[in-house]
Amino acid sequence: MSNRSYVTPAEVDSCAVFHLDPAKIGALRKALISPGSVAELAETFKVLGDPTRVRILDALSHAELCVCDIASLIGLTESAVSHQLRVLRNVRLVRSRREGRMVFYALDDQHILALFAQGLSHVEELAARKPDQGAA
Amino acid sequence: MSNRSYVTPAEVDSCAVFHLDPAKIGALRKALISPGSVAELAETFKVLGDPTRVRILDALSHAELCVCDIASLIGLTESAVSHQLRVLRNVRLVRSRREGRMVFYALDDQHILALFAQGLSHVEELAARKPDQGAA
Repeated sequence: MSNRSYVTPAEVDSCAVFHLDPAKIGALRKALISPGSVAELAETFKVLGDPTRVRILDALSHAELCVCDIASLIGLTESAVSHQLRVLRNVRLVRSRREGRMVFYALDDQHILALFAQGLSHVEELAARKPDQGAA
Repeated sequence: MSNRSYVTPAEVDSCAVFHLDPAKIGALRKALISPGSVAELAETFKVLGDPTRVRILDALSHAELCVCDIASLIGLTESAVSHQLRVLRNVRLVRSRREGRMVFYALDDQHILALFAQGLSHVEELAARKPDQGAA
């Protein structure tokens, strides 16, 4: 493990030899998440995989907001924002609460905030790495 | 804020009155992530939004593995696994390294592991909440 050398995309693919460790595979198999969780996790990520929804979640990662706030903030119609909020609420990425005649939206739980922050850190680190990758 | 009551989906949507706080919106606007980061984040989540890729990342969250390991673990052909690994590598969710005649895959960085774990915690908490939602 001391001489690790991660390679660039497309340089390598599969092993030149076939080697399988049944004990290792058996132990790992028991640790895998359930098919139900796999499906829900994929569905959650799929909903997140849209620029408008990313922008809405970005806004909500800073504050609890109403539809008009979000629409003004990201430059969309209230109708478009409402539609996306419904999609986000269906997979419980956001939740809403009424306060008098106002309706406020927030990220559903702290996991969503953390998930969003980790994704952002990843893409920001990639952006920081890019100048190196360009030089070859 | 003391009388917060989050409501169930489809119960509420938009505010009955329009109220905008320009100072708040202005401050928030400055905190929003860049269009480039929005696009990359959405693309990353989009790639994650696939059950097979979720299963591969789940496997890699436990150990560094070669294509044959992954194929055996999740019951797919090596060709199918290779294809998905290329997709995951293109958005830098996984990386590969050669060790002699073997090629090993790993999650690209700790953010991916954390992101995956947060997503999983979210869907597992939703599953735990579900019996309550059923009762109405």
